[in-house]
Amino acid sequence: MADVLPPDDSLAIICGGGSFPAAVADAVARRGRRPVMFGIKGWADAAVIERYAHHWIAIGHAGRFFRLARTEHCRDVLFIGTVLRPPLSALRLDWQTIKLMPRVIRFFRGGDDKLLSGVAGVAETGGLRVVGVKDVAPEIFVPQGVLGRHAPTERDRADIARALTVIGALGPFDVGQAAIVADNNVLAVEAAEGTDNMLMRIAELRKLGRVTSPLGAGVLVKAPKSGQDRRFDLPSIGPRTIENIARAGLAGLAVTAGSTMIAEADQAIAAADRAGIFLVGVSEDAREERAR
Amino acid sequence: MADVLPPDDSLAIICGGGSFPAAVADAVARRGRRPVMFGIKGWADAAVIERYAHHWIAIGHAGRFFRLARTEHCRDVLFIGTVLRPPLSALRLDWQTIKLMPRVIRFFRGGDDKLLSGVAGVAETGGLRVVGVKDVAPEIFVPQGVLGRHAPTERDRADIARALTVIGALGPFDVGQAAIVADNNVLAVEAAEGTDNMLMRIAELRKLGRVTSPLGAGVLVKAPKSGQDRRFDLPSIGPRTIENIARAGLAGLAVTAGSTMIAEADQAIAAADRAGIFLVGVSEDAREERAR
Repeated sequence: MADVLPPDDSLAIICGGGSFPAAVADAVARRGRRPVMFGIKGWADAAVIERYAHHWIAIGHAGRFFRLARTEHCRDVLFIGTVLRPPLSALRLDWQTIKLMPRVIRFFRGGDDKLLSGVAGVAETGGLRVVGVKDVAPEIFVPQGVLGRHAPTERDRADIARALTVIGALGPFDVGQAAIVADNNVLAVEAAEGTDNMLMRIAELRKLGRVTSPLGAGVLVKAPKSGQDRRFDLPSIGPRTIENIARAGLAGLAVTAGSTMIAEADQAIAAADRAGIFLVGVSEDAREERAR
Repeated sequence: MADVLPPDDSLAIICGGGSFPAAVADAVARRGRRPVMFGIKGWADAAVIERYAHHWIAIGHAGRFFRLARTEHCRDVLFIGTVLRPPLSALRLDWQTIKLMPRVIRFFRGGDDKLLSGVAGVAETGGLRVVGVKDVAPEIFVPQGVLGRHAPTERDRADIARALTVIGALGPFDVGQAAIVADNNVLAVEAAEGTDNMLMRIAELRKLGRVTSPLGAGVLVKAPKSGQDRRFDLPSIGPRTIENIARAGLAGLAVTAGSTMIAEADQAIAAADRAGIFLVGVSEDAREERAR
């Protein structure tokens, strides 16, 4: 389908792992714009990449990417999918990247935010404009309000507010995008481990008797870090998140509306309904008043 | 030894698990005061409790405890050792505790700090004064400066400052007392899982290639929560902490001087020396300037 779209304003999509690259490309094509997939070797899924015009690239090969993007008539570039910070020693750099090394080194220090804004800066030196998912496929974001059959209780709402406040307090440190709060207790704060790992930890602690809030109490909340460049690495959820919430024995999941992406929304909502779990899009302003 | 000490100002020590109850009792006895151990059933170690005058108590048996403390000439009471928040359903309550239930219920909501100040309030209704380890055994705290052979580098010092700032930012939420920072990246924030679990997580993430800071970079920092009542649940370390830091591939461990307890200090320092790990007591003021 995408190959019949006009090539004159194609969108370069640099694709990491996971199912979001496909969801974004589909949405972009549906809106009548031609996606050109640049799969990052070792991360992107060939089955996803090969559905559209595509090339394979490696981290550190900025020069090759810029040439290909020009040939493909791309003026905008979007980054989507999972790429974990590679060890510097694992990178093979081309000459254009090496010329950019002072910038590259800078973004390998500091948290992911710095890494990502560094990447954007490099893309811009190549004459491309970096766009966000919101600019090209806003339908991928969770909307405000309750999705599915179950709704949060008053107690859940209080836990959601507390978790949003905790994530907000960690914003300056470029830490995680998620926290788990049950009955006003902060049970977990996400950092390098990722959301699924954090949920599995709660499931294990519960088995060991170290999480004593009752089954079906507690919320997972995901929200972008306060200082985050929203063109990159937005919080995301999918059916797997719901499964892990069920294993952790929580009541539900709240995400910031309009800034959290949802993969396979229909399946995710169906899974939540089956498991008796709520799924709600909330405003970031729903955080609690800072009581200090 | 303790039984020859004068009983007229005995110290009631309510003992949870771990090795700190023994360390505190030994220090108290060395200073010429008679410790009376109140081992919490299911948590305290009999081998530790039975070295001194002792009784076994259960959580929820406040009446029995007050009677015994009076008989044993205790005016002061100290809480030491590990007791995880029990599920309410697991408690058996005596009449005096039931009369105190409105307070008890209040401290089963909210984080550990509230739980603990609640317990202190209950103890005070029984006519006892709650004292902290610092009042009776200050030698159990890590002093300021480098312990052992290895010292933190400049980069380690910067990571220590960042971790202290993160822990400080979480103070209002009664979350953890520890964080791991490597090369300015916050890798982990402790909540319900505890320090050893958090360190094991970093070891696992490293095996999976998801912690890419080089081996021997990164620090574990422990500090009391900012709003914490220092009579309870202070951060603590011991030889096991050192072993887990080595497994996680970090450079070392920094704790707040004068407010972090160390168990088996000689073994812990020897283990750190062998593993090439630094162990340093820092001022809480060593946190970084808040850059917002």
